[in-house]
Amino acid sequence: MTEDRRTPVTILGLGDMGRALTEALLANGHPTTVWNRSPEKADPLVAKGAVRADTPAAAVAASPLVVACLLDHASVHDVLDPVAGSLAGRDLVNLTTGTPDQARELSGWATGHGAAGFVDGGIMATPSMIGGPHAFVLYSGSRAAFDRHEADLAVFGGATHVDTDPGLAALYDLSLLSGMYGVIGGALHAMALAGTGGAKASEFTSSLLLPWLRAMVDGTLPDLARRIDAGDYAAPESNLAMQTSGAGFVEVSEAAGISGALVAPLEEMMRRRVADGHGDEDIASLVELVRKP
Amino acid sequence: MTEDRRTPVTILGLGDMGRALTEALLANGHPTTVWNRSPEKADPLVAKGAVRADTPAAAVAASPLVVACLLDHASVHDVLDPVAGSLAGRDLVNLTTGTPDQARELSGWATGHGAAGFVDGGIMATPSMIGGPHAFVLYSGSRAAFDRHEADLAVFGGATHVDTDPGLAALYDLSLLSGMYGVIGGALHAMALAGTGGAKASEFTSSLLLPWLRAMVDGTLPDLARRIDAGDYAAPESNLAMQTSGAGFVEVSEAAGISGALVAPLEEMMRRRVADGHGDEDIASLVELVRKP
Repeated sequence: MTEDRRTPVTILGLGDMGRALTEALLANGHPTTVWNRSPEKADPLVAKGAVRADTPAAAVAASPLVVACLLDHASVHDVLDPVAGSLAGRDLVNLTTGTPDQARELSGWATGHGAAGFVDGGIMATPSMIGGPHAFVLYSGSRAAFDRHEADLAVFGGATHVDTDPGLAALYDLSLLSGMYGVIGGALHAMALAGTGGAKASEFTSSLLLPWLRAMVDGTLPDLARRIDAGDYAAPESNLAMQTSGAGFVEVSEAAGISGALVAPLEEMMRRRVADGHGDEDIASLVELVRKP
Repeated sequence: MTEDRRTPVTILGLGDMGRALTEALLANGHPTTVWNRSPEKADPLVAKGAVRADTPAAAVAASPLVVACLLDHASVHDVLDPVAGSLAGRDLVNLTTGTPDQARELSGWATGHGAAGFVDGGIMATPSMIGGPHAFVLYSGSRAAFDRHEADLAVFGGATHVDTDPGLAALYDLSLLSGMYGVIGGALHAMALAGTGGAKASEFTSSLLLPWLRAMVDGTLPDLARRIDAGDYAAPESNLAMQTSGAGFVEVSEAAGISGALVAPLEEMMRRRVADGHGDEDIASLVELVRKP
């Protein structure tokens, strides 16, 4: 294969994300075959050069690299089970959102039906970010299949192979998303609480919250991670006992007339840890309660 | 007063933070008087030039600017109530951690006893950060008192007067801290979840979590704030219905053997909002549930 002959790729599923993936392939010159249960979803892509397959079998047969981006894990089986035989010798990359165990199950299923390789991926981007500089995708599973298609997959966004265990891309994807939801939940609470004092969310965010959280991310998380790896929770300066000595966030939030729900679990863990005799420890020690519920 | 004659300042309370404040004043040439219930805490500061006051009355009398940095709101009254008369004509800056209502109460009390001005402050720094480039302190209350002492207060860290309502520094302080705890809670969950797949927290954090959260803070929060101010929750692309369509974080976390507690409230709010008919909205719309519990 020379550089100017791009790998033919099939996309199964033309939701927002499947369409974005197809557009990125077309923009990079890949012969692209698409299939969707509602075929009219392909119309704008066909206008840009995609080939519409009438059946999943035809779609799978069209390309050495088949990318599934369907509604959920059950949909992947609904579409592929009847045409499992046509996977023989092809690489299957699953970008359907799912759990680590679902990715592992699909890997066994695909290789059991003769797929050359199976790679599961977790897309760390919204559809509009696909193909842009900030999108990245975590992959796990067959290293050989990833290596064969690394350049093809790179058209979607930065491509990183994290492990041969096919479940790990989904696990790390969900881990990163839970980190993101922590940021969003904290920010929602902060904006609502500041709002009870009359602060506009935008002004509060640009002048105070953004610089504060930027500094927190870079200033606190590396130390948090280091402590967790080392099991080193000793904190002479700023520890759980001090952090829980005053009025709690839930109490202050409710006094201000808003819900304390988003801040309650962390506060409850901090107080539990102090009650259990760990008041002289850093907040990193809460990981013990997360690990052992 | 000329530039090279620094304002005399009194610090009440020599916990970790009070000592750090004193060190910053001494390092900047301020004549500094200190008082602490256990007087030996002052020894290292006296060695650096601080003057130890034997009583709160002597401490208050020594300086036109009195800074309280005590254990809690009750401690401030314990120390100052018996010497309220000596506050006359002085500015009181309270850096004791407390609630917005406690700051408002203290403001009324101090000005009722003849204080020239009362300013409450929320310190956005650990003791070791005081006087350094990343420390900042939010102040609210008397604008005149803040203006008289802005340069004095700047030795602790960036000094911002947010409002004349003396409760707002504490409110914004607590808001920022709740944002920080969101980041930390999300990061703890992310590290624990990734850890179930064998990821070392430090490697996961430096290679994936930090770049991801940095991009989230700058890429997501300004839009979240804009939507909240505008009440504009319409989300054609990435909305609550899509975000809750797959397996939940709590389910995946528990399947991986860890607690889902830190991610549960946001997920519950997302599902509640979808059930209430807001599935086509952005996650910013959860602020409605935070505001109206």
